[in-house]
Amino acid sequence: MRYGVLGTGMVGAAIAGKLVALGHEVKMGSRAAGNEKAVAWAAEAGERASEGSFADAASFGEIVFNCTSGSGSLEALESAGADNLRDKVLIDVANPLDFSEGMPPTLFVSNTDSLGEQIQRAFPDVRVVKALNTMNCGVMVDPDMIAGDHAAFICGTDEAAKSQVRELLGQFGWPSARVIDLGDIGSARGTEMFLPLWLRMMGVQGTGHFNIGLLTAARELEEG
Amino acid sequence: MRYGVLGTGMVGAAIAGKLVALGHEVKMGSRAAGNEKAVAWAAEAGERASEGSFADAASFGEIVFNCTSGSGSLEALESAGADNLRDKVLIDVANPLDFSEGMPPTLFVSNTDSLGEQIQRAFPDVRVVKALNTMNCGVMVDPDMIAGDHAAFICGTDEAAKSQVRELLGQFGWPSARVIDLGDIGSARGTEMFLPLWLRMMGVQGTGHFNIGLLTAARELEEG
Repeated sequence: MRYGVLGTGMVGAAIAGKLVALGHEVKMGSRAAGNEKAVAWAAEAGERASEGSFADAASFGEIVFNCTSGSGSLEALESAGADNLRDKVLIDVANPLDFSEGMPPTLFVSNTDSLGEQIQRAFPDVRVVKALNTMNCGVMVDPDMIAGDHAAFICGTDEAAKSQVRELLGQFGWPSARVIDLGDIGSARGTEMFLPLWLRMMGVQGTGHFNIGLLTAARELEEG
Repeated sequence: MRYGVLGTGMVGAAIAGKLVALGHEVKMGSRAAGNEKAVAWAAEAGERASEGSFADAASFGEIVFNCTSGSGSLEALESAGADNLRDKVLIDVANPLDFSEGMPPTLFVSNTDSLGEQIQRAFPDVRVVKALNTMNCGVMVDPDMIAGDHAAFICGTDEAAKSQVRELLGQFGWPSARVIDLGDIGSARGTEMFLPLWLRMMGVQGTGHFNIGLLTAARELEEG
């Protein structure tokens, strides 16, 4: 399959690299074709890898990943172009982190709205699925690095799109039982608002190589 | 030990009941002494249980639990009285849920502040520890109902107060290794902002009887 990956940072490189390793064709997109990091990545990643503008990557991909920084995501997607994204599955990995006041970051949208919803509203013909934004990029593409039944969440209003994302996450190494469908794109509020807790847990762990699991009843309970 | 439990709802009843079962003396507090639910609880719970006003309960307790609804917490604590709470450990279990626009609730404070911080600022002489607000009240007092290494978080600026809460959570059944100290009271933002994800997970599970665990690396990693 052909994938467009918007963003040249650590998340984009991790996702794009994994997709190439799985045998897919990947075009990494950035503000303008010829971005230094994208060119270096494509040269390193081999013949199935290429780079171009956001529009080039969106046009190329049958499925598109948004791995841009949250604060630049809407602008990047505008640049990618609604026509190039139309009817496609857009996997939104970005978080609305605001570093303008230093660490820890706050969220520039939360509580009554989310970046996932903003993107879905701005691009109503795109099938947005929020996914993988609750973990470090190493864990996203190598879930076996974490022991135990840890979880990935998917949020989106298009059921068929979520099925496609679940299948792709399976290729990444996520058993279907650990991919938790939280519901419509409004549930992106939940996964984005998890970030402040994630950041504190990272501080405690001293690494981003952890994840949460959803653990359930050990025994029959008298009350539901 | 003597405990004051502010709040007569499900959370207050669960916490107060557990404390009595552990052999502690407990006074449940509400807006005015003689609250119907508090009187019924105290009659049922036996000789170590009593009820009274918020001020009565705060005065009685060597440690005080805030189990009031988040939207009423600051008013309840004002009613309890700064003098009655001074220098005491206040375990804040409340969440800043706003149901005024229906379901799902939003948070009336989040992102750049938290209810835990509001309480600490309003009562600077009280040793506030945010705890247990990331789970159903049944799980709070019976962690063994959930299988696996699920977690409880504590947040607070007073280290000695957190040690006391960790010890008490041990009495509740929480092994110390699963009580995760996230740092100062500012980390309460993380645990309160987890609620929207928790609510979506509850929707998926169809029950509040679940919890999250913090799962870590399965193997040595080349990069930290």
